[in-house]
Amino acid sequence: MANDVFKGITIVGTSNESFSHAIELAIERAKQTVRELRWFEIRDQRGAVRDGQIEYQVTLEVFFKLVADTPAEE
Amino acid sequence: MANDVFKGITIVGTSNESFSHAIELAIERAKQTVRELRWFEIRDQRGAVRDGQIEYQVTLEVFFKLVADTPAEE
Amino acid sequence: MANDVFKGITIVGTSNESFSHAIELAIERAKQTVRELRWFEIRDQRGAVRDGQIEYQVTLEVFFKLVADTPAEE
Amino acid sequence: MANDVFKGITIVGTSNESFSHAIELAIERAKQTVRELRWFEIRDQRGAVRDGQIEYQVTLEVFFKLVADTPAEE
Amino acid sequence: MANDVFKGITIVGTSNESFSHAIELAIERAKQTVRELRWFEIRDQRGAVRDGQIEYQVTLEVFFKLVADTPAEE
Amino acid sequence: MANDVFKGITIVGTSNESFSHAIELAIERAKQTVRELRWFEIRDQRGAVRDGQIEYQVTLEVFFKLVADTPAEE
Amino acid sequence: MANDVFKGITIVGTSNESFSHAIELAIERAKQTVRELRWFEIRDQRGAVRDGQIEYQVTLEVFFKLVADTPAEE
Amino acid sequence: MANDVFKGITIVGTSNESFSHAIELAIERAKQTVRELRWFEIRDQRGAVRDGQIEYQVTLEVFFKLVADTPAEE
Amino acid sequence: MANDVFKGITIVGTSNESFSHAIELAIERAKQTVRELRWFEIRDQRGAVRDGQIEYQVTLEVFFKLVADTPAEE
Amino acid sequence: MANDVFKGITIVGTSNESFSHAIELAIERAKQTVRELRWFEIRDQRGAVRDGQIEYQVTLEVFFKLVADTPAEE
Amino acid sequence: MANDVFKGITIVGTSNESFSHAIELAIERAKQTVRELRWFEIRDQRGAVRDGQIEYQVTLEVFFKLVADTPAEE
Amino acid sequence: MANDVFKGITIVGTSNESFSHAIELAIERAKQTVRELRWFEIRDQRGAVRDGQIEYQVTLEVFFKLVADTPAEE
Repeated sequence: MANDVFKGITIVGTSNESFSHAIELAIERAKQTVRELRWFEIRDQRGAVRDGQIEYQVTLEVFFKLVADTPAEE
Repeated sequence: MANDVFKGITIVGTSNESFSHAIELAIERAKQTVRELRWFEIRDQRGAVRDGQIEYQVTLEVFFKLVADTPAEE
Repeated sequence: MANDVFKGITIVGTSNESFSHAIELAIERAKQTVRELRWFEIRDQRGAVRDGQIEYQVTLEVFFKLVADTPAEE
Repeated sequence: MANDVFKGITIVGTSNESFSHAIELAIERAKQTVRELRWFEIRDQRGAVRDGQIEYQVTLEVFFKLVADTPAEE
Repeated sequence: MANDVFKGITIVGTSNESFSHAIELAIERAKQTVRELRWFEIRDQRGAVRDGQIEYQVTLEVFFKLVADTPAEE
Repeated sequence: MANDVFKGITIVGTSNESFSHAIELAIERAKQTVRELRWFEIRDQRGAVRDGQIEYQVTLEVFFKLVADTPAEE
Repeated sequence: MANDVFKGITIVGTSNESFSHAIELAIERAKQTVRELRWFEIRDQRGAVRDGQIEYQVTLEVFFKLVADTPAEE
Repeated sequence: MANDVFKGITIVGTSNESFSHAIELAIERAKQTVRELRWFEIRDQRGAVRDGQIEYQVTLEVFFKLVADTPAEE
Repeated sequence: MANDVFKGITIVGTSNESFSHAIELAIERAKQTVRELRWFEIRDQRGAVRDGQIEYQVTLEVFFKLVADTPAEE
Repeated sequence: MANDVFKGITIVGTSNESFSHAIELAIERAKQTVRELRWFEIRDQRGAVRDGQIEYQVTLEVFFKLVADTPAEE
Repeated sequence: MANDVFKGITIVGTSNESFSHAIELAIERAKQTVRELRWFEIRDQRGAVRDGQIEYQVTLEVFFKLVADTPAEE
Repeated sequence: MANDVFKGITIVGTSNESFSHAIELAIERAKQTVRELRWFEIRDQRGAVRDGQIEYQVTLEVFFKLVADTPAEE
């Protein structure tokens, strides 16, 4: 991939099931609008407790390739 | 907020008054174009000294909800 | 620059030559679509070895000024 | 929740099944004596190997609301 | 203070006014039940935005002297 | 120890002799009220100089097993 | 285990199923040649996306006891 | 500022009023003897409680330009 | 690379020329005995000054694939 | 030492006496099989409490020179 | 100490005996020229092995009060 | 170097050419007034973009031996 340039964006997925599910949802959502999604890094795992139920929250950084017509500043 | 996906962006506010003012300015600016702004985290507090006057600079990460028509890659 | 607000984006440059070259490529690419690019910070230096050749990868955060008509959420 | 004060405590959950299970056990245990449990943060994921079997250990910080009659120093 | 032993607890103060106010509220609350409060450290500054209003949240660690009849495990 | 839940508390030991002595004093004090003390982690080593004499200060996190009748919120 | 000496090695497990599966595979692989495997620490959780499929990658540090005839420098 | 060399020094400001005031005092003090003070970074925010009153303590790193006759080793 | 397991080792390259040269030397040395070298991460950049000359020192972590007959514990 | 390449390995020393003793034991053990041991870094200080007795555990990274016939991948 | 300003300097003590001895030597040396030495923080513990003997090296930050005639920029 | 005491100072080198050049300039400048310069550590790599040109900025900590007549507090 030499000479390619990639961009990283921070997203947070949430799920009532598990951290794994929250990660999958976040990546699914990113793939809807990001072309050329390549890799991701888990940055933070947290959660909330609402009415006795756990809500899992995962912060991840997702990287994709900047192709010719992608504005970098977005 | 389970199953919701959020996005975080990094902004830097600056002010000649205080760190508090720099934070308020940064969040005001973000609210102009970001719908559904939810939470923020202070990442860095720095400053410059110009002509003897302090300029406060705050780096913060601001998170908002990705709604159906928001492109995630931005 | 007091009262100005800036935005930081994460990009990754790659090069078969050196880390220096990867940084230059990443900043060149960012300048194509970002107006008012001001400063950057090196966050990570890594690399891959493919067919015995080193590919240098640099993650950097690039900051630019938010002017009146820039949507902050991008 | 403005003007409310919360307290964070550090707990470690353990399980022979998975990190997920260790988190659930730790939060269940905390809920037995903590009222108003609100959110948690994963701080560390480790494990032991005993007789060839993996024991998962998760350190998490759990936060709850300090109500009028909760001694803060606990 | 040689030979003394101290204990640190984690508390989170919240305020609609400022980070400063959130710190003061948290320390006031701690002083209600903690005797011999001695020093504190700011660990995290975050916030929420609700109905367009900023809620400041400060996580701090507060230390107090363990006197003869204080149970340490609390 | 699978399925067991542990709690961590932060204590600071002080001594005019050495860091080692400060650690021992802190653990001795914790054992007076904590049953089932299991492990500890050194988090910080600092000190003060008073009248030319060094006072050693060690911050450590001490972990113990939560047994059936231990309130977790303490 | 006093007076024993242990060694830690860094391994990365990968799986198309989950982070949990990647951890299990890595520990299974380590057990094939490491005697006296004792504990491990999760250091990093990342992943790749290939042809739309997630590949989970976990970096962990695995520790084992150095017995009399184990060369330490390995 | 290319080819210029700067030096950073660590100072701690204290105030009974606020962190903001402690920062201002520290920078004022530094300006008395440092020429060409340029920028600063907040490294730590802590405090003490004495007779029920909060003393704010801020550790900051202050940078100034090394001019021809400034001894660098200071 | 799913289901593959990799191992990371820490090496330090040194050079009188540059950090770049020190990295290249370290990777060349690793390739002499490591098969399937895949990626590396820069962890630390330091140096010494001897007789007025700079010696560059780079600590990097190098990862390679564990193939069937590689002992993991090394 | 320019152009030399070094390798770092992670070891954990344990002792019932002190952290100092645990460090000495770990280095003694490393010297039995590692030639050209040069420097070390303390990474972590922890401990266990067994039957009321403290066991000190020190994680250190030990570096030695790779000579011509040392396989780097170990 | 409100309204006082302090300065921190970084020093490294070395000893063939122990880390404790290296700390004492460093503080003794600092006291020869620094008036009003108040507190210190341990930042790093490393060492070298020369001719089979351990040399302990401790990096610490030492803080002293800036009195009226102390130049801050030093 | 046992029983020697060293001092570390923070300097920032800048260059329009490269990070390497910025490091060399900073060390050259330090050598003008510091005797017995021994080693350095890279702490931060950043840069500015002015009129489309990159200015490289490197923060490094430089250590030198405190000889008998060097005032430590500088």
